[in-house]
Amino acid sequence: MRATTIHAPHDIRVEEVPDAVVRLPQDAVVRVLRACICGSDLWAYRGESAREPGQRIGHEFLGVVEETGSEVSSVSRGDLVVAPFVWSDGTCEYCREGLTTSCEHGGFWGAPGSDGGQGEAVRVPYADGTLVRLPAEAAQDDRLLTGLLALSDVLGTGHHAAVGAGVRPGTTVAVVGDGAVGLCGVLAARRLGAEQIIALGRHTARTDIARSFGATDVVAERGQAAVAAVRELTGGHGAHAVIEAVGTEQSMRTAVGITRDGGAIGYVGVPHGSGTGLDLGEMFNRNIALRGGVAPVRTYIPELLPDVLDGTVDPSPVFDLTVPLEDVPAGYAAMDDRSALKVLIKS
Amino acid sequence: MRATTIHAPHDIRVEEVPDAVVRLPQDAVVRVLRACICGSDLWAYRGESAREPGQRIGHEFLGVVEETGSEVSSVSRGDLVVAPFVWSDGTCEYCREGLTTSCEHGGFWGAPGSDGGQGEAVRVPYADGTLVRLPAEAAQDDRLLTGLLALSDVLGTGHHAAVGAGVRPGTTVAVVGDGAVGLCGVLAARRLGAEQIIALGRHTARTDIARSFGATDVVAERGQAAVAAVRELTGGHGAHAVIEAVGTEQSMRTAVGITRDGGAIGYVGVPHGSGTGLDLGEMFNRNIALRGGVAPVRTYIPELLPDVLDGTVDPSPVFDLTVPLEDVPAGYAAMDDRSALKVLIKS
Repeated sequence: MRATTIHAPHDIRVEEVPDAVVRLPQDAVVRVLRACICGSDLWAYRGESAREPGQRIGHEFLGVVEETGSEVSSVSRGDLVVAPFVWSDGTCEYCREGLTTSCEHGGFWGAPGSDGGQGEAVRVPYADGTLVRLPAEAAQDDRLLTGLLALSDVLGTGHHAAVGAGVRPGTTVAVVGDGAVGLCGVLAARRLGAEQIIALGRHTARTDIARSFGATDVVAERGQAAVAAVRELTGGHGAHAVIEAVGTEQSMRTAVGITRDGGAIGYVGVPHGSGTGLDLGEMFNRNIALRGGVAPVRTYIPELLPDVLDGTVDPSPVFDLTVPLEDVPAGYAAMDDRSALKVLIKS
Repeated sequence: MRATTIHAPHDIRVEEVPDAVVRLPQDAVVRVLRACICGSDLWAYRGESAREPGQRIGHEFLGVVEETGSEVSSVSRGDLVVAPFVWSDGTCEYCREGLTTSCEHGGFWGAPGSDGGQGEAVRVPYADGTLVRLPAEAAQDDRLLTGLLALSDVLGTGHHAAVGAGVRPGTTVAVVGDGAVGLCGVLAARRLGAEQIIALGRHTARTDIARSFGATDVVAERGQAAVAAVRELTGGHGAHAVIEAVGTEQSMRTAVGITRDGGAIGYVGVPHGSGTGLDLGEMFNRNIALRGGVAPVRTYIPELLPDVLDGTVDPSPVFDLTVPLEDVPAGYAAMDDRSALKVLIKS
C-alpha cells in the first residue's frame, strides 16, 4: 500500500510500505477515506521535533473497517469509523476515568513501528477501545464526512481547551491561535454557551471563519497591543476563559495577559519553550489557572458526535485545501507557508 | 505606639511609630492581641524581596476594635475581630465573586503608608469588607485564640491550595512543604475528605504535626527520590491532588513529578524563579493542571471559622514559639534558621 513517510525536515514522501494487517487479536485494519495534516505535523516537517528517517506520519483519519482480529467486538468489516489521534485500550484505569491519552497501552499514530493516518490503510491496535462507529449513511455526505474527520483531533482538542478554560454559559472567552484548533475552540466555546468570544488573529480568511463559528469580536493586534485590545473589550478585566492553541512562549505570554483575575487558560498548543513565557508571578498574584494538555479526544467523541451529525456544529470550513494522497507533500508545503489553513486528504 | 519595621536585610526593629488612627470613614483601628511571623516575611528579611527602609511588616493579626469611622457598620468598638492578610472593600466585582485578593481597593498590610500586623495597633481600611467578627468569649481561650489567628493567612492559604488541587472525598493528596502553610494544607485536605495524605518533609518535629493533622504517610526524601517514594505509595501513579506550599523551582519540579496524570497542583508558595522548574511539556503530556495563587482568605473565613470554633480543625500547633512584641527580631532569627516553625507574637 502507499503511505506518507518523513525522511528529513521538508522531505515528505508518499511511497510503498508494507500493507496494514491484523497482527494481534485486538487489532483492526481501517481503509482510510479521509485524513488530514495537522499543525503539529509541521513541527516534524520543520525539524523541530525529531523523527526517524522513513517514519510514518499523520494522526487523523476516518475510514471503513476492512478486517478485525478475533477479539474485536465493537466494530465489524464494512463499518464506517473515526479514530482519535491516540489509540487506547479502553479498559485501563486512565481510560475508565476518561484520560485516554494516558492509557497504559496507548500510542500515537506514526510512532516507530505503527502506521500513520496519511496512508491508504492503518492497522489499529485496541480497536474496541480506539475506534468509534459512525452512521453508514454519513459516507454519502461529503461535507458531513469532512466534519466528522475533525472529531479525530481538532474539534475534540478545541473542546478540551474550552473545558480546561472553564467555559460556561455567560462567560467571556478569548482564543489565542487562528489555526484549525483555535477555530474549533471558538466552535466549542459557542457550543458551551459562551456569551462573548474574542478571536485573536490577523488573517481575514481565518477570522472570517472564526466569526462564522461564533466569534463576537476579532483582535488583530499581537503582543502587548493584543492584551490591551482584549482588556478594552472586556471592561478592563480580561477574559474569564482563555483558549491557548499555539504553544509558543509569545502565545502563552499573551494568554496570561488577557486572562481575567481568577480565570483560567485552557492550553492545547503543544508547548515549545518549556515554561518560559509563563509568568508564574503574575499568574500567582491574579489567581490564573492553567489546565489542559494533550486532549483525550476519544472520550469526547460520543459527546460531540451528535452535534456534528445534526449540523449544530460544523467544523468542515477549517479544511480549505483538498489533495489526493500522492500530493500530500504539496499539502505540507501549503500549510508550512500558511497558504492553507488545514489540508484534507481524500483517498 | 510600637510596631515592627524592617530597615535592611536582617535588620528588623521594634520602634515607636505614629499611632494608628481612623483617617477615612471606612476605617477601623484594631488593637492587636495576637500577630505572627509568616514564612513569606522571610523573603523580605533575607533581602530577596525589596522593602523601603523603615517599612512596616507583618500581615497576620487579630485583636479588638478600638475605634471605627463613621461609615463602618459591621464591627463596633470592643468587638474581637480577625483580619485576612489583604484588606478588601467587600463590594467591588472581584470581592462579590470571592476573589478578594484582586479587590480594586485592596492592599497588603505593611505596604508603604499602611500599618503592619506586627505592632500594637493597625489602621484597617475598608473595615466592613475586611474584618470578620469573632465570638467575644474566644478571647478567654488562649489556644482557641491562637488557632483563630491562623484564619488570617495560613489556614485559609492551605485551604486555597487544597481547593486548587481539587481535593475531594476519596482523593490521594501529596503536600510539598512542611512549613505552616503546608501543614495547614494537610488539615484542609483532611477536612475536605482526602483518603490518603502524603506529607513531604524531613524534620520530625514538623512531620509529627503533619501526622497529627491527618497525614497518612510521610516522605523524607527530596527531588527524584521523593518522586519515586510518592509513586511507590500511590500504585505508581502519583497523587490526584498536590499542594505546593514552597514556591521554589525545586519544589515545583517535585510537585509536577508526583502529580497523577489528569491531576492538579494547588500552588500557594509565592513563586521564586518565575516559570522555571515548571516542565510545561510534562504537564501537557500528562494533563496536569496548575491552580492557585494568593489566597482570597477573607472569602474562606466564614466557611472555616465554625470548624475552628468547635475544635474540628485546630491549627494552633503550627505556632511553636511565642514572643512578646519587643522580641520580634529574635523571632525572625528563629524562623530564619528554622529553629522555629512559626512564631506567635503576644501583645
